[in-house]
Amino acid sequence: MISFARGAPSLDIIDVDGLKAAADAALTTDPGGALGYGTAVGYVPLRKYLADLHGVPVEQVLVTNGSMQADAFLFDELAKPGQPVIVERPTYDRTLLGLRGRDADVRPVSLDVDGIDTDELAALLEGGLRPTFAHIIPNFQNPAGYTLSLAKRKRLLELAEQYDFTIFEDDPYRLIRFAGEALPSMLELDEGRGRVVFASSFSKTVAPGTRVGYLVGSAALIDKIRVRATNTYISPNMLAQAIVHQFCVSGGMERSIATVNAALAERVGVLCAALEKHIPEAKFTAPEGGYFMWVELPEGVDVAKLLPAAEERGVTFVKGTDFLIEGGQSTLRMAYSGVRVDQIEDGITRLADALKSLQVAAG
Amino acid sequence: MISFARGAPSLDIIDVDGLKAAADAALTTDPGGALGYGTAVGYVPLRKYLADLHGVPVEQVLVTNGSMQADAFLFDELAKPGQPVIVERPTYDRTLLGLRGRDADVRPVSLDVDGIDTDELAALLEGGLRPTFAHIIPNFQNPAGYTLSLAKRKRLLELAEQYDFTIFEDDPYRLIRFAGEALPSMLELDEGRGRVVFASSFSKTVAPGTRVGYLVGSAALIDKIRVRATNTYISPNMLAQAIVHQFCVSGGMERSIATVNAALAERVGVLCAALEKHIPEAKFTAPEGGYFMWVELPEGVDVAKLLPAAEERGVTFVKGTDFLIEGGQSTLRMAYSGVRVDQIEDGITRLADALKSLQVAAG
Repeated sequence: MISFARGAPSLDIIDVDGLKAAADAALTTDPGGALGYGTAVGYVPLRKYLADLHGVPVEQVLVTNGSMQADAFLFDELAKPGQPVIVERPTYDRTLLGLRGRDADVRPVSLDVDGIDTDELAALLEGGLRPTFAHIIPNFQNPAGYTLSLAKRKRLLELAEQYDFTIFEDDPYRLIRFAGEALPSMLELDEGRGRVVFASSFSKTVAPGTRVGYLVGSAALIDKIRVRATNTYISPNMLAQAIVHQFCVSGGMERSIATVNAALAERVGVLCAALEKHIPEAKFTAPEGGYFMWVELPEGVDVAKLLPAAEERGVTFVKGTDFLIEGGQSTLRMAYSGVRVDQIEDGITRLADALKSLQVAAG
Repeated sequence: MISFARGAPSLDIIDVDGLKAAADAALTTDPGGALGYGTAVGYVPLRKYLADLHGVPVEQVLVTNGSMQADAFLFDELAKPGQPVIVERPTYDRTLLGLRGRDADVRPVSLDVDGIDTDELAALLEGGLRPTFAHIIPNFQNPAGYTLSLAKRKRLLELAEQYDFTIFEDDPYRLIRFAGEALPSMLELDEGRGRVVFASSFSKTVAPGTRVGYLVGSAALIDKIRVRATNTYISPNMLAQAIVHQFCVSGGMERSIATVNAALAERVGVLCAALEKHIPEAKFTAPEGGYFMWVELPEGVDVAKLLPAAEERGVTFVKGTDFLIEGGQSTLRMAYSGVRVDQIEDGITRLADALKSLQVAAG
């Protein structure tokens, strides 16, 4: 099975030897820190590293067991039953699940190639909607692969200020940029006004199995989440965080990001060429980073039928409908993070074949 | 400060070199498993190891980020607002916090040297109380250090069967036995009837910073918790779990347990002797394992006053009142897991001095 489904890196772009060296270094230089209980804010040297990376005091940082756990704490803190929350349409399926599980009033706003439709959002706000927060994946969005423009980042901050809501900037793909220019985060643009809570992770830059994520927010919010974290698990994984810290300070991060970005750039190039050749009717925008590309097939193609036909032929993807509350019947999310370059054209040929089989069946 | 407060091992009884070797082995033999996302049930080979250890199918095991996280999932699943839950009196302070945070109707039942007072519990049940579950720390209880007798283990199972409640057997200290004979767990005695859900951890046998805990329960309950775990963090820490697994299968566990138990036995001996010599009025039962000893001082001693007087003299402990909803004003929990042998008598001398200062002040 050739998988365009899972948003996970293939093992060949993970620096296993660098992590071995980091594990040894962590247990040599700070065995007490790596192996003791620690505290709910995370491994202290890693917290400091992240505070410096984002130019904030350490009190504004909390390191968690992956950024999903950070999301869960944040949702527990901010999402209340019946209260409106803005999400992008489409958005990450687990975000939808987490918000609906807390009975939030989930309000999807259209996503364009340059990010969430801020005019549509402004109209909702003018119409009286008062969301608690807006969940935004600013770079190489999951599932769409789109990136929020600078103008829209600024507009979102203005709206958040005017209508008094928080922006949850969920940014795991920030450093996985292989084309174009990096944009400032909304956390930076906010300049400490406390409108933004930012989450990221080392899953894409180091390895998912380390399960290290983090939050940056106002000191007051971070302290509330520290209490939740203490009561949930005393402390996150000190051993894994100490290893990630050693990996970072030894220069492993820069090397790893260079490896990952070079590999993903090549895969995107091959994927786009294969789609143009074998499924010329497919519409897509080549991403400048991240793991995912959104593909629209002609109206009338039903991805619920396409997926089993594709899997019969040994290729898989995620249906666009999984990322939407409604609609998207002809869309799919293609992840290129987990496939080898030499599998891509073969995978797309199989997908084209599956697509033809539906047309034959319908015709 | 000499600390009898924290229930954590001193670094000298952690096998740092063994963990370095385990990290290297984990990243050499299974880099994909250690560094990939994995699944919510935990690192598959460790899950299998634990299933074999407990003689159950793998479907009955779920590995978590520390056993506190296992408790949290279980409480989310089983503790309902207003519904009665049995706890031991005294019990672990975080258990009380977790249950009260979920608005459970917490019903403490007296704890004797041989465990929870099953007659008192039976009377409550006969009186109509219908608890959802009973939280029991069977071995070397935190904070008391007491162990549940075999007769009471059997009686608890009978009561659970008769009155249809679950026993939550919270057993992190099971393998930390340095005197006396090991008793069968209630999980074993239940023989697969599904009355017991069992939790344990590697914090005391390997190191707390690995944050690896686990649950064993009915396949149906474990599957419900698997869904909660997926929605909370996708998967627990694969890297740390792969390291712990290698540590276990390479024989590190047996060596580590032998080291820990020898050190704790020596510390308990020195602690009891120092108390008999310097505070002869103190009452206690020397534990046969675990980290903690419960000490009763003469009625009239107020530990809320003793603690600051002790800390002024460079020694600390946890007040017994922290583990009780009411009462325990003259009791304290002495942890001997984190002190060096050569600190113990000095610490007890300081504590005796603090005690005298209160008597002088009162007299």
